[in-house]
Amino acid sequence: MVTIKEIADRLGVSVSTVSKGLNGASDISEDLRQLVLDTAVEMGYRSKKFKKGEHKKLCLFVENMDYETPNQFGYDIILGFRQSAFRDNWSVNVIPVTPAFQRDEKYDTYMLKNGYSGGFLVGFALHDEWMQQLIYTSIPTVLFDNYIRRNPHVCYVGTDNFEGIETAVDHLYQLGHKKIAFLNGSLYSMVTEQRYQAYLDAMNAHNLPIEDGMIAHGYYVADSAKYHVPNFLAAGATAIICGNDLIASGVITECQLRGLRIPQDISVVGFDDLPISTFLDPPLTTVRQERTELGKCGYAALNSLIHHVSVSKTLLRPQLITRDSTAPIAAPIKTSNAADSFSDTQL
Amino acid sequence: MVTIKEIADRLGVSVSTVSKGLNGASDISEDLRQLVLDTAVEMGYRSKKFKKGEHKKLCLFVENMDYETPNQFGYDIILGFRQSAFRDNWSVNVIPVTPAFQRDEKYDTYMLKNGYSGGFLVGFALHDEWMQQLIYTSIPTVLFDNYIRRNPHVCYVGTDNFEGIETAVDHLYQLGHKKIAFLNGSLYSMVTEQRYQAYLDAMNAHNLPIEDGMIAHGYYVADSAKYHVPNFLAAGATAIICGNDLIASGVITECQLRGLRIPQDISVVGFDDLPISTFLDPPLTTVRQERTELGKCGYAALNSLIHHVSVSKTLLRPQLITRDSTAPIAAPIKTSNAADSFSDTQL
Repeated sequence: MVTIKEIADRLGVSVSTVSKGLNGASDISEDLRQLVLDTAVEMGYRSKKFKKGEHKKLCLFVENMDYETPNQFGYDIILGFRQSAFRDNWSVNVIPVTPAFQRDEKYDTYMLKNGYSGGFLVGFALHDEWMQQLIYTSIPTVLFDNYIRRNPHVCYVGTDNFEGIETAVDHLYQLGHKKIAFLNGSLYSMVTEQRYQAYLDAMNAHNLPIEDGMIAHGYYVADSAKYHVPNFLAAGATAIICGNDLIASGVITECQLRGLRIPQDISVVGFDDLPISTFLDPPLTTVRQERTELGKCGYAALNSLIHHVSVSKTLLRPQLITRDSTAPIAAPIKTSNAADSFSDTQL
Repeated sequence: MVTIKEIADRLGVSVSTVSKGLNGASDISEDLRQLVLDTAVEMGYRSKKFKKGEHKKLCLFVENMDYETPNQFGYDIILGFRQSAFRDNWSVNVIPVTPAFQRDEKYDTYMLKNGYSGGFLVGFALHDEWMQQLIYTSIPTVLFDNYIRRNPHVCYVGTDNFEGIETAVDHLYQLGHKKIAFLNGSLYSMVTEQRYQAYLDAMNAHNLPIEDGMIAHGYYVADSAKYHVPNFLAAGATAIICGNDLIASGVITECQLRGLRIPQDISVVGFDDLPISTFLDPPLTTVRQERTELGKCGYAALNSLIHHVSVSKTLLRPQLITRDSTAPIAAPIKTSNAADSFSDTQL
């Protein structure tokens, strides 16, 4: 049981100052009073007014994102969030959620009944049930890679996808590539939409041709490649930008299965800079997201919201990491022959 | 010269507590120490250790923005920045700069020769010399209300102007206004451009008419109003959104000089929520920018850049503060008569 004396000792003030703070006396400053209250709550002080008493808790919800091992996308985001939260004495529960879970549990109700002061949501899609509820939530909430308009209790944290894709297109353009295909990730994702628009913008900025056969949406997994790479090759692509590194790994495999060399015949660019990027053959040129920092920014934003500072958006810069999967465009390659031989495998 | 005793009195704590806070003693809480530091900065306390010179330093450059008294726009931004920087033992020099200064001194050179670890720039225009140099700077630099693409050493901090103007238009629309004029601030400003686009977007979203005679660019001063209000009235405006509160104060005066009542005949909305907003007659409905928080976010971003975390953009939510300068649209007012009588005063 925490006593007033202990709070006073912790703050380095007198017992009477703490008592004034707890009882709303007017002869100490509002700031100090707030500090006394904050500290009392934080120390688990219990009075008639402070029955809450439980440890302060944040909840990190994960949907549709791998995070359990260091080679997975969500791992470092969660690590960074936890590290920063720990410094401020928050405990963090990580809870995987499904669409069914979201239908069964209302977000605000779930947060309140479990005593969470704020939430960090990663991996959610635009059509998820909770995304609709967040338009009106009053719970401090930070979304990784999703944005809610006008709600002062919700903040968006992410990497600038526009600059990310732009740097990838610029890099390939400088290497002489003109026919640049784009194998994007899943539909119904804000990130996917931003990267798609960024691709169009960057291609237009260089007056490069944008063709239907050079753009496809798959999923954020390697398996997406086999359905779309044949079309890209048939359309004459000399370079393929991928929605993430997993897709890129699949693209490399598909190209190599068809006897094409990376990067001599086809350049490939990923997105994220997962650990896998360095182990691919060849090592992957990719757009790096600083995932640990994203997690830390997520906590910083949530902490701001909890303290009634309405941060709306925090973006990190992407960084192009140039490895061996991209190279200057070769003398004309036999794209038309290559395409012919694949035509019967196209979907 | 502010004394430790004065800081202690204001906070309602002992002199020894303040002394401990200023000197980093370990027997008071971190939170209380930070409160002592914040208050010391706010009161203008100068520590002896900061006077010695050999200290880590940041520079805050101000161009074309008033900041010397609490009723001016830059005051709280600078205060918030100083408060946050002081907690981390940075000293901050505030340096007003002119276009001539920027031509004479290269930004990077100036920063290096003066030993600054980072810069926070407020009030700069798009055509300023330093804005060009910042495209390539390697000095950690945060811009209030300006954005530099692709440079990982530069971050943009500001309020979301799109949401700000959108909330103003929505508010007037809900009050029944359809002919909403927009008196924007100075050209050659990113903020001005964003607010202009936001006005167009929001008007289009409500299918409201956008007419040339209903949009004007002036300067961020009250005097702008007299050149443009007559045109707006001639065009039949029933509401006027202003680029900032100073413009709005001028708009109110101009309308009242012409015998129009605010808000019965014309509604007026400002931007910023400067202290003046509450003292106007009538008190001004306006879009609030949290200026102290903007300064604190500016420091947080600069601190991130200095530690090699490439924050690209941090935005705060604006908040519409509804006071007495806006009201439901009245029965048809005699705008055409009013316009006729002003026509010879138009520029």
